[in-house]
Amino acid sequence: MPIDYKKELESTARNMIFVHDPDLLIKMIVRMMVDKAKIAHASFFLHNKEKQGYLLTVSRGSLHKKIPLDLVCIDKDDVLIRFFREHKSSFIFGREALLLGEAKLALKGDKLKSEAKQQLAHVIYQMELLETVVCIPSYFRDELLGLLLLGKKESGKKFIDEELDFFVALNSNVAMAIRNAQLFKELEYELDRKHQLFIRTTIALAAAIEAKDHYTHGHTSRVTNISMEIAQRMGIKAKKNFDGKFLENLHISSLLHDIGKIGVPEHILNKRSSLTVGERNRIKEHPMIGVNILKSIKELEGAVLGVRYHHERFDGMGYPEGLKGDQIPLIASIITVADSFDAMSSDRSYRAALNKVDVINEIRHLSGRQFSPAVADTFLELCQEGKI
Amino acid sequence: MPIDYKKELESTARNMIFVHDPDLLIKMIVRMMVDKAKIAHASFFLHNKEKQGYLLTVSRGSLHKKIPLDLVCIDKDDVLIRFFREHKSSFIFGREALLLGEAKLALKGDKLKSEAKQQLAHVIYQMELLETVVCIPSYFRDELLGLLLLGKKESGKKFIDEELDFFVALNSNVAMAIRNAQLFKELEYELDRKHQLFIRTTIALAAAIEAKDHYTHGHTSRVTNISMEIAQRMGIKAKKNFDGKFLENLHISSLLHDIGKIGVPEHILNKRSSLTVGERNRIKEHPMIGVNILKSIKELEGAVLGVRYHHERFDGMGYPEGLKGDQIPLIASIITVADSFDAMSSDRSYRAALNKVDVINEIRHLSGRQFSPAVADTFLELCQEGKI
Repeated sequence: MPIDYKKELESTARNMIFVHDPDLLIKMIVRMMVDKAKIAHASFFLHNKEKQGYLLTVSRGSLHKKIPLDLVCIDKDDVLIRFFREHKSSFIFGREALLLGEAKLALKGDKLKSEAKQQLAHVIYQMELLETVVCIPSYFRDELLGLLLLGKKESGKKFIDEELDFFVALNSNVAMAIRNAQLFKELEYELDRKHQLFIRTTIALAAAIEAKDHYTHGHTSRVTNISMEIAQRMGIKAKKNFDGKFLENLHISSLLHDIGKIGVPEHILNKRSSLTVGERNRIKEHPMIGVNILKSIKELEGAVLGVRYHHERFDGMGYPEGLKGDQIPLIASIITVADSFDAMSSDRSYRAALNKVDVINEIRHLSGRQFSPAVADTFLELCQEGKI
Repeated sequence: MPIDYKKELESTARNMIFVHDPDLLIKMIVRMMVDKAKIAHASFFLHNKEKQGYLLTVSRGSLHKKIPLDLVCIDKDDVLIRFFREHKSSFIFGREALLLGEAKLALKGDKLKSEAKQQLAHVIYQMELLETVVCIPSYFRDELLGLLLLGKKESGKKFIDEELDFFVALNSNVAMAIRNAQLFKELEYELDRKHQLFIRTTIALAAAIEAKDHYTHGHTSRVTNISMEIAQRMGIKAKKNFDGKFLENLHISSLLHDIGKIGVPEHILNKRSSLTVGERNRIKEHPMIGVNILKSIKELEGAVLGVRYHHERFDGMGYPEGLKGDQIPLIASIITVADSFDAMSSDRSYRAALNKVDVINEIRHLSGRQFSPAVADTFLELCQEGKI
């Protein structure tokens, strides 16, 4: 193995820092070891907090199937781990790697205390069990982050000092890259957690508000699901998926589309007899009440369009602004169909639910009048396939 | 400058990868250049998307005040930038750094096309203006991320090849570390944005729900502000600040403490005459209604304690559970004081607002009965200082 130390180290480091998945990163490094250094097999045990040990993360090479399965997690108190945790680099060899051959020699010498000899014997046994001739620890600051285990060289030759030095240096870079990747992953996890918290809280509050309207139990979540189905199918039909932002906006918008009903008196929402014109007009205020509740939140700009316009009609006869056809934002047109479908399919204070066939016929009938034909068609397609 | 190339490079890389503030990172690297390599001055221009140019991020050394101020942002079409963007490493010197002396020599030679000569002359002029003898570009993939400008060595000697090679290698590591730091910063920004979205949406929805109760306009935001003031002061008094998680929970909890009122009929909330026992009991349900709305959200567990227990009393006479003294979670005890203060200070359907002196006296009087003495004391202290 001719090693251009500097070049390998630099190009590896260059790649590693931008791999933000620790497992993938370790896979890359282990593959490099096996392929470039022609080692029969190599494996990496990564520290795992929950398991309180070192988990076999990657194993590669001709012999990797032979690693005993019950050793797939090395306990943090295992002798191999303790050896590196307690002695760091200074124990026997003046380098961080532990070479099986040298360890055996050391065992025969007289320099070691009997306690250390016993420990070393265990380590040697452990290494032999894993068919490992070199163990290289990865430290980050004072912490043992992981352990790289290398089998024999394919050529059968012994590892030379230059190679071991290279592996040790490389592994210290690996440790940094792993920590970096872990930090990235933690941050991404935190971001996802925060997003979930936002969505769940919005769902909880929207559901609480919805509960004021005795006839709409579960309406919001059904409208949200149907809207998302329609959007995904429309994306597929247009042969380009909507970007994540549009779907996120639609999700939030569907959840909040009726939020303005909080501003409509309960006795109107729940009235059993038919509504007066004045009462009907109060109900028609709910999109703009919703807009007013949310308008100060700049990030919701896109989502608010759905709240504002989900009662517009394709023929321009809707409210609050009487927008027509393409003037109506797509996000609103999608919610309109989902909203109408669910409203027709549910009991209302003033009428019982229609059956599904009648609802579907009604939506087909109103395509191009109340509904955007593109959205209605997609909806009908999904119904035919039994997806809704 | 004796360079232990490998050692410097490794230890610098080791530090750089965990600095997630690009500016700080560049400061570290420039300081290292000036101090270790004994260079009279050094500066770094970092690419800035908004400014469409390269911003002077760090400048250090004896001469750094002489850098002309109008050059603090180098335009992306400036000749120095274009030179490195267009020619990358291969133009004249076979290395990525541009050395003033060598550039002058090249200008005298005949190998260059006249267009290139003209460009180089501009570059030399620009470098002389900046009192720079070496320019080193930082590339990330194909993009020119920044430019490191070095002045003369303090010794007056010329830079040797080994030094330049070291700087170039170091600067390529700098480029990676900068990109890494930028990615981190973007992710952290995204996390903050998501948190703000969550908080703002919660505020908007809580305010909408509050609006159902005609007498409590602005109540939620006042309670939130007072609760946060009390908690911060209590943390200071206990000589340890509360952890961020407690303050975050208190923030959310204050915003949502009355959310359960959504489940209380409007005519009871807004009744002008005195309430019947039955009506009073309906109102007393609001903490548990709030708990039910939020209980499925695991991340809000801590915050929900404040929603649940903000009507408990220190003497055990409160509701819903009649908890006593230390049984009541601190988060709830804080909200109780803030909530009561604001309720007494505002008009209600059944009485006018009390004046502030009377309210304060009442809170003092009820300390140890309705209120936790520790919380009430802190509140009174803040009142005396005019902070509330």
